Amino acid sequence: MIRACLWRAPLPTLRSQPPPSSSSFLPPHYLPRRRNSSRFLGSAMVSISPSSHLLFRQLFEKDSSTYTYLLADVTHPDKPAVLIDPVDKTVDRDLSVVRELGLKLVYAMNTHVHADHVTGTGLIKTKVPDVKSVISRASGAKADVLIEPGDKIAFGDLFLEARPTPGHTLGCVTYVTGDGPAQPYPRMAFTGDAVLIRGCGRTDFQGGSSEQLYESVHSQIFTLPKETLIYPAHDYKGFTVSTVGEEMLYNPRLTKDMDKFKDIMANLNLPYPKMIDVAVPSNMVCGFQDATSKA
Amino acid sequence: MIRACLWRAPLPTLRSQPPPSSSSFLPPHYLPRRRNSSRFLGSAMVSISPSSHLLFRQLFEKDSSTYTYLLADVTHPDKPAVLIDPVDKTVDRDLSVVRELGLKLVYAMNTHVHADHVTGTGLIKTKVPDVKSVISRASGAKADVLIEPGDKIAFGDLFLEARPTPGHTLGCVTYVTGDGPAQPYPRMAFTGDAVLIRGCGRTDFQGGSSEQLYESVHSQIFTLPKETLIYPAHDYKGFTVSTVGEEMLYNPRLTKDMDKFKDIMANLNLPYPKMIDVAVPSNMVCGFQDATSKA
Repeated sequence: MIRACLWRAPLPTLRSQPPPSSSSFLPPHYLPRRRNSSRFLGSAMVSISPSSHLLFRQLFEKDSSTYTYLLADVTHPDKPAVLIDPVDKTVDRDLSVVRELGLKLVYAMNTHVHADHVTGTGLIKTKVPDVKSVISRASGAKADVLIEPGDKIAFGDLFLEARPTPGHTLGCVTYVTGDGPAQPYPRMAFTGDAVLIRGCGRTDFQGGSSEQLYESVHSQIFTLPKETLIYPAHDYKGFTVSTVGEEMLYNPRLTKDMDKFKDIMANLNLPYPKMIDVAVPSNMVCGFQDATSKA
Repeated sequence: MIRACLWRAPLPTLRSQPPPSSSSFLPPHYLPRRRNSSRFLGSAMVSISPSSHLLFRQLFEKDSSTYTYLLADVTHPDKPAVLIDPVDKTVDRDLSVVRELGLKLVYAMNTHVHADHVTGTGLIKTKVPDVKSVISRASGAKADVLIEPGDKIAFGDLFLEARPTPGHTLGCVTYVTGDGPAQPYPRMAFTGDAVLIRGCGRTDFQGGSSEQLYESVHSQIFTLPKETLIYPAHDYKGFTVSTVGEEMLYNPRLTKDMDKFKDIMANLNLPYPKMIDVAVPSNMVCGFQDATSKA
């Protein structure tokens, strides 16, 4: 029997509560870690160690259904922060949140050269000059920092690990939070367009390859612990997060074998990406040309 | 100086990792609690106790920019779950997630009688007959469970507390996660349209009152700990979450004094709500008439 019930009890202090007890409003998104390396069982109690003090925000751009992610180490005196996949249209919103939360934006990162929107990276650099743009060297795009497979991008005591996940484009990477003692648990994978929630990015442009995407996802993402949170670059159905375990069970494309996957991807019959001719040239220079013209 | 740097290190096991170690993929959203009642300081280390094992999902309906929330106690054998503010259009999506995660939906709850979309509550009841609909008695709407101020809605070992927050409508409530030893930390407030991120709901229909809304928010929501997470019923700018502390500092309406707030709300010059004549009659019976006609 389900132990779900409603009970009625007065809230004795409903209108006479003490004032908020916190002298700081900073809202870290506490993602605790395992106390030891014992196996994770989703439905079992696990012991956890002190939080990593990650502040985390997921932000949405409606026209292109793009998610931008803000991560910061709020235990560090400078509160260094990174933005993953910012969009040009929402740069002011994102920088406003950074400012209000007292963060110091260090990196503006892209998972890949996007074809459906202009990155906000270049515009951010015109507004916050110390910020460094980050993209993979394999993308062929320009940026302050060109990352290679296995690189770690640190902000305070936290870091993201860059895993190469080509296939949607030849330069796609997935940024995964670290596995060290100060890092958040569960781990978080920012998969770009490699894995979408119950889907994946198309493979018919920008050096895409369905075979390579399949191999990337299975070797670089589906080998992460099953409870790892998946935060994609887009969602079109209103999902905000998934997990590696869920996608391994329920992704309608990536659960198939390679041949079936290639067949699915070859027969999507998608229209020509409407933004590609604007977005890709701009994003090859991290949106900077576009940003400069707007600035 | 910011301790942010990039370092290059090979990922020795990048393509030869062991298979995922978890035998269960269930992805609880670990929200730990304080180990004791010491004051929360957002930027300081805090000790935490074992997680509450809350599974949490935020879901978005794009046409009305509505957030639906799924919460479940995944430590309970039945994994009982609640949905807050489901939308009729996205019921199939929501029930699919419930099914895939192996949850048992117990309550379909509304924060208020919505004017901008038809609730999914009635449709859910036709598809999952054991589910009980929940709304405040003050709303005047029909539902299986009519809650009063201070009521607690339990699912497994977790519960939500109903705080009356009228003003947008006369029957608005804010559901707040509990403050007991098994409950998530930070607390989470599902504010409906009472507090939106950097905004609030309009007060010119459905028994709305700007004075009452101001009083509700300041007495029932802004008295929660500052780190309490605010999850609104809507967002139109791509924000997904805020905190009590942030809104107390940066909400452009609710940070003003009462007179100024009333003046702002009296001069919004908003158009007549386009869905109100369809949505409100339907939502007064928890969407059930509408759902029945569709079923």
